[in-house]
Amino acid sequence: MTMEQAITTFKGLLERKKMFSSAMTIMGFDSNTIAPKGSVQAQSKRDGFFGMEIYKLETSEEMKNCLDILGENLGQLDEVTRAEYRLAKKNYDQSTKIPADLVRRSAELSAQSHAAWEEARKNNHFATYAPFLKEMIDLQKEALSYRIEPGQSPYDVLLDDYEEGMDAKTYDQFFNQLKQVIVPLLKLVTESPYQVETGFLKQFVAKDTQKAISRYAAEKVGYDLNRGYIGESTHPFCNGYDKTDVRITTRYDEQDFQSSFYGVLHECGHALYEQNVSDDINGTTLGRGVSMGIHESQSRFVENVIGRSQAFWENASAELKGFLPEGFKDVTPQMFYEAVNESKPSLIRVEADELTYSLHILIRYEIEKMLFTTDVDVNELPQIWNKKYEEYLGVTPPTDTLGVLQDVHWSWGAFGYFPTYAIGSAYSAQLLAYMEKDLNVEELIRQGDLATVVGWLTDKIHQYGSVKPPRELIKSIAGEELDASYYTDYLVKKFSTLYKLTTKLESRKDFDLKVDEQAVS
Amino acid sequence: MTMEQAITTFKGLLERKKMFSSAMTIMGFDSNTIAPKGSVQAQSKRDGFFGMEIYKLETSEEMKNCLDILGENLGQLDEVTRAEYRLAKKNYDQSTKIPADLVRRSAELSAQSHAAWEEARKNNHFATYAPFLKEMIDLQKEALSYRIEPGQSPYDVLLDDYEEGMDAKTYDQFFNQLKQVIVPLLKLVTESPYQVETGFLKQFVAKDTQKAISRYAAEKVGYDLNRGYIGESTHPFCNGYDKTDVRITTRYDEQDFQSSFYGVLHECGHALYEQNVSDDINGTTLGRGVSMGIHESQSRFVENVIGRSQAFWENASAELKGFLPEGFKDVTPQMFYEAVNESKPSLIRVEADELTYSLHILIRYEIEKMLFTTDVDVNELPQIWNKKYEEYLGVTPPTDTLGVLQDVHWSWGAFGYFPTYAIGSAYSAQLLAYMEKDLNVEELIRQGDLATVVGWLTDKIHQYGSVKPPRELIKSIAGEELDASYYTDYLVKKFSTLYKLTTKLESRKDFDLKVDEQAVS
Repeated sequence: MTMEQAITTFKGLLERKKMFSSAMTIMGFDSNTIAPKGSVQAQSKRDGFFGMEIYKLETSEEMKNCLDILGENLGQLDEVTRAEYRLAKKNYDQSTKIPADLVRRSAELSAQSHAAWEEARKNNHFATYAPFLKEMIDLQKEALSYRIEPGQSPYDVLLDDYEEGMDAKTYDQFFNQLKQVIVPLLKLVTESPYQVETGFLKQFVAKDTQKAISRYAAEKVGYDLNRGYIGESTHPFCNGYDKTDVRITTRYDEQDFQSSFYGVLHECGHALYEQNVSDDINGTTLGRGVSMGIHESQSRFVENVIGRSQAFWENASAELKGFLPEGFKDVTPQMFYEAVNESKPSLIRVEADELTYSLHILIRYEIEKMLFTTDVDVNELPQIWNKKYEEYLGVTPPTDTLGVLQDVHWSWGAFGYFPTYAIGSAYSAQLLAYMEKDLNVEELIRQGDLATVVGWLTDKIHQYGSVKPPRELIKSIAGEELDASYYTDYLVKKFSTLYKLTTKLESRKDFDLKVDEQAVS
Repeated sequence: MTMEQAITTFKGLLERKKMFSSAMTIMGFDSNTIAPKGSVQAQSKRDGFFGMEIYKLETSEEMKNCLDILGENLGQLDEVTRAEYRLAKKNYDQSTKIPADLVRRSAELSAQSHAAWEEARKNNHFATYAPFLKEMIDLQKEALSYRIEPGQSPYDVLLDDYEEGMDAKTYDQFFNQLKQVIVPLLKLVTESPYQVETGFLKQFVAKDTQKAISRYAAEKVGYDLNRGYIGESTHPFCNGYDKTDVRITTRYDEQDFQSSFYGVLHECGHALYEQNVSDDINGTTLGRGVSMGIHESQSRFVENVIGRSQAFWENASAELKGFLPEGFKDVTPQMFYEAVNESKPSLIRVEADELTYSLHILIRYEIEKMLFTTDVDVNELPQIWNKKYEEYLGVTPPTDTLGVLQDVHWSWGAFGYFPTYAIGSAYSAQLLAYMEKDLNVEELIRQGDLATVVGWLTDKIHQYGSVKPPRELIKSIAGEELDASYYTDYLVKKFSTLYKLTTKLESRKDFDLKVDEQAVS
């Protein structure tokens, strides 16, 4: 095969893979929204078939030959093809290094482990799930042993799987810094004599009204409904296979309209990323967000940096009150702003506010790291979990269902996923700081000119899809890597003001930012 | 390849094809219900890809080898495999006999012709569409020349494509019989001094109420919502890829609740067929309805034979009034029954009542036959169309948009499709007659015991999916083939009573049933 033939063959394989994954995207949306419950088996057979087709393509002899030729001539490839190579090579290596039998055993265990977790969670009985969790970790370690590079820690491989370029050393420093700022900040907030009023948010808002609000909110932040759709599902998500079809879902609680409101803003942040990739990579394997962390930075930007800002409420509250019932008549923009930013230590990650959210992630990170780098007994996890919640959040889970059993991730074998949530939030604050050098962000939001704000994100992030690796992408904007100070500065400033704290905190100066491995593990 | 290997390979190819078509089914449902308008291009690229994958499978060298071996040993195959062979062989022959270039040209023309039809229909300007229609017919004739058997008429090939085993001779006899009964019967109905009251049906019924009615109606006839879903689309349809996932759609008009009510019953008739195939063929290429005609017999049975019967309204009107607004309070079962059966000559096929529907089809059949067996000039179609409407229905289309341009079928090149609608109705009456030998159908409907009625259909029709060819399937029930008398008897009895006709008609005796080719062409 000549170089030219290799490129053509390679692109043909990717195109084919893209078609299969497009089908899976649509079928996945369908399964999670409207597919009949009775068809679970048929769905899983279908998903298994297409998953296997993709696996066969990614690991085919033809793919290997292409990758070999392309790999020897990386310098000759254009940026797009080089990025396609990078992703395809990563997939190939991930899939081919692990023996097929181990892949099969993992898939089987994953289904069993998930079922056991569901049962344990329902019955608040961690012990019935523990052996599955242990086996899942052991199997993951076995699989990692085939992929690990000399000197690398198994957990590093997992962290890189979910966020290219990340490792425990980087995360340790990152989370240590968060912990040193957020834990004392939260303590001050909790003990502050000034507490915000939130009762009015719990008024009844009919589902149809909330649907209209969802469309209003989505269009306000620039989500193009002509290339999107707002569905309903138990767990909100965003998916897309082409910039002309990027969908989101939400769920409606008639006693808590802000749940769907912020859910929609969050998913719109994800969706804007994929609706705004540049045309020349649309429809290729690169026409998606590059990583979980960067994706989350976009969703958090729209949800929090925009949607939970004072300026946003100054602009949007009158419009929103056009939809809301009479009972909201006397709510001022400041009241909305304060209420949607109430910070309160809580047990459940998915219900956490902006200030406490990262602490929930920190706890999961510390435990995952423990699981993959020490001999900790999984049976001790409930105690370890509860102790950390007491230490960092000051709350004690009364049951394991409200504690260690709350998240689905580990039951599927997804270790190393959680930390991406936290760097997403941190990146969103870092991007805000860069954006403020170019734009008067607060004023733009106050005027409702979100197109300019989102336009900046498109210019710096969205358009590139997966072309630039995540850390390189961030570095390309202001020459810096992930820096948690932007996030801690943002939180200190926002919550000190909101809770009228008298103790003056300055996140970069008041805390020791040295890496202290002991402190985070 | 041994016989055993051939069967295994053959089943593997069909399984693969089934997976691709399952994906297309879900994506098709999605495209017709919720997919963003902006994604039309991406949809068509995706559909083209999967259509081509199926085509390549159906016409592969591997498929040919399997078919050759199986074809030489048909006697050794079990009934299911023989049926799979029959369908696969038909596909193979259809696809391979026509030169690839002609297939490509047809596909291109089909898109252009459809666009031209849409434009012409919008502007009421047949002349701009006529050249595309002519080219489409010429291209079809060219394609048919490769497929035609000695002595066969090209139109027969098309008729067989849409309803296996049918030809113009059989249809001529069939439509001739319908014409000779329905045309005079309709005249008597139209001129009857007794006319039914329908005004109350046009009361406002909110969409949400109609949605609740849809679920009630669907469940009443036995549609399993745990293995189904009721969506919304411009044109109602039913699709499914597995008996655990068979969906329907409807559309809601708040000034005409019976439109969605009967739409749902109709689609439920289709859906029951596919939800009730036997487990051993579910998920195979045979786990679908065998033909358009048989499929339509099931939808018409549920919609008309059940849903528009007096007994049904005696049973259901009280329940239905539980959903309907106050304005329906005084409507009696008899009033409902009469109103939903109002017969009135009209211009538009899809709005036609039970009595006139077949005349709309008859007209299309006669014109199609003319197009494929004579040198008629397509420019004369509007006049021919209008003349037939005057003759059979007594109405004259004021515009071509309300006349010859109303249906999409020909624009896609679907000639030979229409007649299946009419035999569906006829089969539904024929099945009712057979069912009445086993069950007191009227009494069962009156008691709301539709499970027994549908159970009979499952026993005789549904369970077999595509295992038995359509004509053989009908013959297996009572030893007879399609016989239009059952249908004309049914119509004469129902509408003579309903419209209190004084002229006594008996369809089998009063009309000359001899085949008179002249009369129907």
